Amino acid sequence: MAEPPLPPGSTIGILGGGQLGRMLSMAAARLGMRAHIYAPEPDPPAGHVAHRVTTAGWDDHAALDAFAATVDVVTLEFENIPVETLHRLASSRPVRPGPGSLEVSQDRLAEKRFLNAAGIATARFHPVDGEEDIARAIVACGAPGILKTRRLGYDGKGQIRIEAAGEAGAAWSALGRRPAIYEAFVDFGLELSVVAARGRDGAVACFDPAENRHEAGILRRSTVPGAVSAAQRVEAALIAGRILNALDHVGVMGVEFFAAGNGLLVNEIAPRVHNSGHWTIEACTIDQFEQHIRAICGWPLGDGARHADAVMENLIGAEAGDWPRIAADPAAALHLYGKDPPRPGRKMGHVTRIRPRG
Amino acid sequence: MAEPPLPPGSTIGILGGGQLGRMLSMAAARLGMRAHIYAPEPDPPAGHVAHRVTTAGWDDHAALDAFAATVDVVTLEFENIPVETLHRLASSRPVRPGPGSLEVSQDRLAEKRFLNAAGIATARFHPVDGEEDIARAIVACGAPGILKTRRLGYDGKGQIRIEAAGEAGAAWSALGRRPAIYEAFVDFGLELSVVAARGRDGAVACFDPAENRHEAGILRRSTVPGAVSAAQRVEAALIAGRILNALDHVGVMGVEFFAAGNGLLVNEIAPRVHNSGHWTIEACTIDQFEQHIRAICGWPLGDGARHADAVMENLIGAEAGDWPRIAADPAAALHLYGKDPPRPGRKMGHVTRIRPRG
Repeated sequence: MAEPPLPPGSTIGILGGGQLGRMLSMAAARLGMRAHIYAPEPDPPAGHVAHRVTTAGWDDHAALDAFAATVDVVTLEFENIPVETLHRLASSRPVRPGPGSLEVSQDRLAEKRFLNAAGIATARFHPVDGEEDIARAIVACGAPGILKTRRLGYDGKGQIRIEAAGEAGAAWSALGRRPAIYEAFVDFGLELSVVAARGRDGAVACFDPAENRHEAGILRRSTVPGAVSAAQRVEAALIAGRILNALDHVGVMGVEFFAAGNGLLVNEIAPRVHNSGHWTIEACTIDQFEQHIRAICGWPLGDGARHADAVMENLIGAEAGDWPRIAADPAAALHLYGKDPPRPGRKMGHVTRIRPRG
Repeated sequence: MAEPPLPPGSTIGILGGGQLGRMLSMAAARLGMRAHIYAPEPDPPAGHVAHRVTTAGWDDHAALDAFAATVDVVTLEFENIPVETLHRLASSRPVRPGPGSLEVSQDRLAEKRFLNAAGIATARFHPVDGEEDIARAIVACGAPGILKTRRLGYDGKGQIRIEAAGEAGAAWSALGRRPAIYEAFVDFGLELSVVAARGRDGAVACFDPAENRHEAGILRRSTVPGAVSAAQRVEAALIAGRILNALDHVGVMGVEFFAAGNGLLVNEIAPRVHNSGHWTIEACTIDQFEQHIRAICGWPLGDGARHADAVMENLIGAEAGDWPRIAADPAAALHLYGKDPPRPGRKMGHVTRIRPRG
């Protein structure tokens, strides 16, 4: 017999305390669940809307065991959690998504190899374990390209563009001489992403893809449907489904693509709810946060249908100070994350505007 | 100079810990605010999504003072709070709405007199301070009618229908021989309500009225626009605005009407967010909960615009056990309040379904 769904009243343990955990906590509450946030930093934004908060490090076994004892399922809002942490929790509680999804997505090289092995196209890439590998990578993949650290990169951090082999030494130093990957530069016409979910029973549902615009490596704006064609929408959903199934992933995943000349290339995957899916809060009956809670609790998934077109803009750093102007626009759905103080490049909130489907 | 709006990061003190406080807490969080719930009962549902919870009685001065010291503004989700509690809090913090709104709405007789004095029509009524007043009330107002306790009635409790003077003794005993009001029965064609808001600056905004259906005195379903005519929509908004202004109310208010032969009669007012406004969560960019937080914080109000038609159904008592069936409908926005266990007549959750505006 299939495991029954977790009933209302259950407690969802969430690893990480940022805005994604905050919005997951509220989605859990809508379904009658309680959230328990586990995060290393004090006063995490997610803790403002959670039933409980544990402040402890990822390697604090006593704290992890005590946390596990209070929750019915463990999930995460952040992929750079040590896999050992997940294994420890998984010894006593279901952890969804499981450690496998993190192992792949924490390491750009492992991720690209996994994708290609699953028959999914990416930019050409080459591992870089030392300065001397960069020249080889340029021969293999061409220039220009992007040198990226294999681990702990986000929002454009840990990346540097290389035009020619002569820049190899400087680039290698700039990234801190850490294991890296060289990726051929893709002259894409369009960046898009899809937020997809897979249930405990293997069911998959996708939201419509968003056209994304990045600035300085940080997501600036997601537009739905934007310039995404019907063919790209279908292709993105099929690729996302293949990734979710190959990872036996349970929960939501964000998949970012480049639309190159002859199809979609996967840029990266995030094994969690995704910034480019925030528009679903206003434009879908069941948004990405509730979809994730449903997936990990064994509930039926929402169908991903949207009732509106949407544009979501991030509020980055000092832009959040613009809240009085945004609040004066009754068509703007304003979300502020309770972070203080604003730091340059930090995501402080977002604004979504919807309009009837075009 | 006008008082500046409360900035994100402020703390909203909320008196009462039920589902309305729960949804207010989440709305506050969306705007970057923190919620501090004050409630007499342990483990209040609102506390699951609040930054802090104080469990103490309405007359616990030390607890009230400590609560006030942690918050920037005080509001309420429940009108049956002793007015003395609000006065004590108001000595150190802004309390919105103020004690005046509660004084009127806690007492059915005071409420009816206030409404009539403001030129707003109600059912005919007569005060009943003893059994002998009932016969006089029937002479003055006619029969049948409803005998209602003046205070602490909700969801149809504290009410009894009277067909003739001979039932006076039994009715008076059934209501516990407490100060009461006799109201002429209104043979209404339609029950409707409007949720309106008034800002700190006196600006007023209304959501569209809902057609309501009650069963056993409890709201069963709100439908927008339902059978509410354009003329009734305008009349309801004008009456609500007049009430808000007359009370110098700051925040959201729910006003319930009967549509009788020649216009709208006000049935009752609730100086808070209202069950018949839950549909705004899905159908409006700025819902009634955020509207209330905006009003009490001195932010610009949303315009009340809705992008969809909506039907909201309450889940009462054991009906919440139906969640697996509701969760399987991807068009159903399910809200469960985290209450346990279900009791007969207790509001456990609600479901909203939207469709494009007709």
